[in-house]
This record gives sequence, structure tokens and C-alpha cells, in this order.
Amino acid sequence: MSILVVGSVAFDAIETPSGTRDRCLGGAATYFALAASYFTPVRVIAVVGEDFGPAEESVLTLRGIDTRGIEHVPGKSFFWSGSYMKNLNEAQTLNTELNVFQSFSPKIPPGYDDSEYLFLANIDPLLQADVRAKMPKVKMVCGDTMNYWIRDHADNLARVLRNLDALLINDGEAKMLAGENNLVRAAHKILSMGPKALVVKHGEYGATSFFGDTTFPDHAQRTPFRAPALPLAEVVDPTGAGDSFAGGFFGYIASQPRLTPAVFRRAMFYGGVMGSFAVERFGTERLQQLDRKEIEDRFALFRQLSHLD
Amino acid sequence: MSILVVGSVAFDAIETPSGTRDRCLGGAATYFALAASYFTPVRVIAVVGEDFGPAEESVLTLRGIDTRGIEHVPGKSFFWSGSYMKNLNEAQTLNTELNVFQSFSPKIPPGYDDSEYLFLANIDPLLQADVRAKMPKVKMVCGDTMNYWIRDHADNLARVLRNLDALLINDGEAKMLAGENNLVRAAHKILSMGPKALVVKHGEYGATSFFGDTTFPDHAQRTPFRAPALPLAEVVDPTGAGDSFAGGFFGYIASQPRLTPAVFRRAMFYGGVMGSFAVERFGTERLQQLDRKEIEDRFALFRQLSHLD
Repeated sequence: MSILVVGSVAFDAIETPSGTRDRCLGGAATYFALAASYFTPVRVIAVVGEDFGPAEESVLTLRGIDTRGIEHVPGKSFFWSGSYMKNLNEAQTLNTELNVFQSFSPKIPPGYDDSEYLFLANIDPLLQADVRAKMPKVKMVCGDTMNYWIRDHADNLARVLRNLDALLINDGEAKMLAGENNLVRAAHKILSMGPKALVVKHGEYGATSFFGDTTFPDHAQRTPFRAPALPLAEVVDPTGAGDSFAGGFFGYIASQPRLTPAVFRRAMFYGGVMGSFAVERFGTERLQQLDRKEIEDRFALFRQLSHLD
Repeated sequence: MSILVVGSVAFDAIETPSGTRDRCLGGAATYFALAASYFTPVRVIAVVGEDFGPAEESVLTLRGIDTRGIEHVPGKSFFWSGSYMKNLNEAQTLNTELNVFQSFSPKIPPGYDDSEYLFLANIDPLLQADVRAKMPKVKMVCGDTMNYWIRDHADNLARVLRNLDALLINDGEAKMLAGENNLVRAAHKILSMGPKALVVKHGEYGATSFFGDTTFPDHAQRTPFRAPALPLAEVVDPTGAGDSFAGGFFGYIASQPRLTPAVFRRAMFYGGVMGSFAVERFGTERLQQLDRKEIEDRFALFRQLSHLD
């Protein structure tokens, strides 16, 4: 079923030990949409400026992504510039220009309101809450956030968390959000804030999901689940790895008739799979040209990497 | 079959956010021996001072560990004092007194020379090489080391590495030993130094093994293997987690008729299982009083934590 994603569509300038790119298509919604598009139909709500032309749009439409919700306005698109020269695991932000994103007011185009799955990518929690409120009939809502919103917009974020089915964040964000250094205790605190499930991404060490009492009401099982990441000899560009994880994770869930514990676990693996592809090349290069067989082969590799038999 | 371990038997003073212990039995060989003792007979070669009495010895003998190789000499036992107040993942060493360990010259007692498995715990590589040379008939040799030996005793360590079946170290040590920041590239460099297999421990994120061309000559498969760690709401005392991992890992291998890829993978899980028990209480407290059922239950939990089906 269709996933609707709201988030940034942007241009990035990136430097990593493997090279540099002065300008490539980026943004959380872009990475999420491309990764999810291999599993299920995807619709995007975002805002772009005049620098976002047919060439950029075709990156999405060639993957069958519905871009009617991308609003074009005068001005420049969101621009982010970052460096991984010091640390491949964490971007050092060199420059952020919000540009047209500054006055973004998400609108749901006609034909989007039957989306059953909603992903609130990392944007102002006020906008996340706004979109959530405009989609009262969605079946499942997942979201992301970051240190800036956790630190300075805690009340707005709390309102978003109360209505989330799953929150996907990294270790540092989870510990900051909970004000707690132990990951298990941090997870329980976050689950008490509203999300039915929490997926904590550990970068090269994979990801762990924690479940609240209401995640799977029919299932007694509450054990966390840990998915591996693929050990890679070269991480060309880590940008978008987390959003690609989210796209693989939620895209797979949306493609399945019902969310069961087994579907959730497989979704964690598909998240890792899509994240591992994303970092193999700069920007969205690798995510634009996958096929389902490559994805299934890598899924099998993740299984081999982590399973006893 | 019997494992022979050579390493430190010591007293530790430890402070962690959960409390303090002024003096508890410690040392790499102690943790290793206790963890391995649940799987296979264990023999220890170490040196202790007059402060190591019957009470300390009984911690080992009650687990059926053969302590005939523990040499008693005048003076005080090796003493280490460390704090985890700043970082539960890495001890801050407050004090190290080598004491009787300073002039340790390992001797193989009669009756130890039919040991088929040898573990060279983290000690001076000259001593590791010496013991290795005195046990020419062992079937499999695993070893550990640390930053101090990597940095300042590289040539001696290189001689040990050339004859190891498996090296077990943590991420930081692996990257330092290889002079390489990417773990996969570091692993390949280390495998080219001699070990047939490399097990890299990631603390709370589990462990990954990498295999050289000669690890399993009969098997084409060379995929790394990643074992999870158990997400714990309280890590009481991380001391000895790595040595307990090594004890579970190698103890299980020694208990099996043949080292196959499947046995190696299960050994990685048992390593994680024993590490997870070790950190639940101070010092060796938890490792002294396990039973096989608790171990198997936790093994099942590790499987549940990481397996799709």
C-alpha cells in the first residue's frame, strides 16, 4: 500500500575520504522515497525552489514515485553541506541554508489522502504534527527526528511522539531524548512517551528495535530485535544511510498485508540492506539503480551474516 | 577437550556507577577459566603472591578448574584498579601494580602437556610466544592482546600473531594493530599477519568474526559473522567481559569434536552469552554461580534477539 513521506528534498555538498560532490540531490524525503520505492508505491510532500528542475524530478519519477506533492516555489531549495573527513560516522555540518524550506507549509494534494502509511521525516515537529493531523485515516505512522528538535523543541516533539507507531533514531538521539545513558533504559523511557516501537540505529553496528506493551497486542513476545549492518571495506558517503534504512524498513512493512513480529524483523533487515546500498556511492547514486534481485541477494547475505544455521 | 590458559590471576579494585569493590578476584585468566569451565575442562598457568589463599583458589577449583599451574611465590599478586565512572565502555586505569607478575616465567606442569587447546590471554607477547613454543602439539591456539603491546612491542607481538588460529580483540585494538580506520580493511590486514580468524568485540554491539583463506580449507564460505550482544538495562561491572567472551567462545569450540563454520558461529554466540553474564555483577560473582540451563536459556534469547524466524 502507498506510503506518504513528508520531509526535505534538497541539494547537498559532501566531502568524504572517498571524494567530494559540490551539488547532488539529497534530503531525507528523497533518500526515504527512493529506498521505499523498491517495495511499495511512494508519495512525497516537500517544497523545492527554482533550482529543482525536470532532471531532479526524474530521479524520483523514474522510480515511480508520485511527486505531485512536491510544491515548487520561487527561491532556492534547501541546501546542506557536510564533511565526513574527521569521522565517517558523524557528519560535520559546514553550512545549512533553509531557503524555501523556511516557510514550508505542507499541503496534502487531492489523491494523497487514501495513503495508509505515513512517514514523518526529520523536520520541525510542528510540521510533522500538522501533516499527521491532516491524515486521520492512516494505518501506521513512523517518524524520525534529530538533536536540534530534541533539545530546543521538546514540547512540540512530545506531541508528535504521542501518536507514533514507531520512532526511528540513532543511539545519540535516543540517549538525548531520554536523558539516559543506558540504551535499554533510554528505550523504555521513550516508549513511555508514546511510540509503540522504537528502532535505534547504530550505524556500522546495525540497529535494535524495542517494543512497547501495545506494539503487538496479540503477541506475548517483547524481546528486542537486533539487525546487523554489512561490514563494508569502503563507506563512500554515509549521507542518507538512516533515511534509506527507514525507507527499506517502512517500505517493506507497507508492502505486507499485516504487521506481525516476523514482518517487523524482516523490515529491520531490509532497512539495513537499503542503508548498506546507500553508502556505497555518493548521494542517491546507488539507490537510483538497484533491482529487486540485488536487494534479495543482499538480504540473503544479511541472513548469512547473522544466522546460526 | 582440555583448554590451557596462560594469563593474569589478580586482584582488582573497581568503581562503576553501580558501586565499588576494593578488592575482588580478577585477571584475564580467571575470567576466561571460569567462563570456559561451563563447557570443557580448563587448566591455568599463572603466578600469584601470598595474598592469594585457599579462598581465592577455591573460586577456581569449585568450578573444576585445574590450578596446578598457578605458581605461588613470595610477594603480592598482580593488582589493577580501574574506574568506569566516566565511560562504562572503557575502563580508566587508576593504578597497576605488576608485583609478582613482573618476573613471571611460565612453566608447564607435568600433566598439562596433552592440552589440545591453548589460550594466550593478554600478557607480554614474549611470554605468549614462550608458552606457545612449549606446547608444540596443541590443535588450536587463540590469543588476546591490548594497546600497550600493539604500540610498544610490535615485533614480539608479530611473532605471536604468525602462529595464532584466532585473535580476539576489540575494535580500537584492531584498528590500532592494522593502522587502519575501516574495520573490514583492518581485519584483512590483520589476517595477513597470520591469524586464521579474527574476532572483533564491539562491547554492547556484539562481535564480528572475519576469516582468512586458511580458516576453513574445506569451505568456500568466507562471509563475516556477527553475533549480537544482549541489551542490558544495567551493566554493573564491565571488567572481564572480553575475557569471559573468549572463555565462552573457546570453551565451546573445545567441547566440540570438530571446528566447523557452524561450530564457530555458535561459539560466537556463547562468547556473547558469557560476556553478558559477566557484567551483571561485580568481578567474577556471576560467573561463579551459573548453571548450564541458564546458559542455554540465554543462548536461546540471543537467537531470538537476532534471528528472523
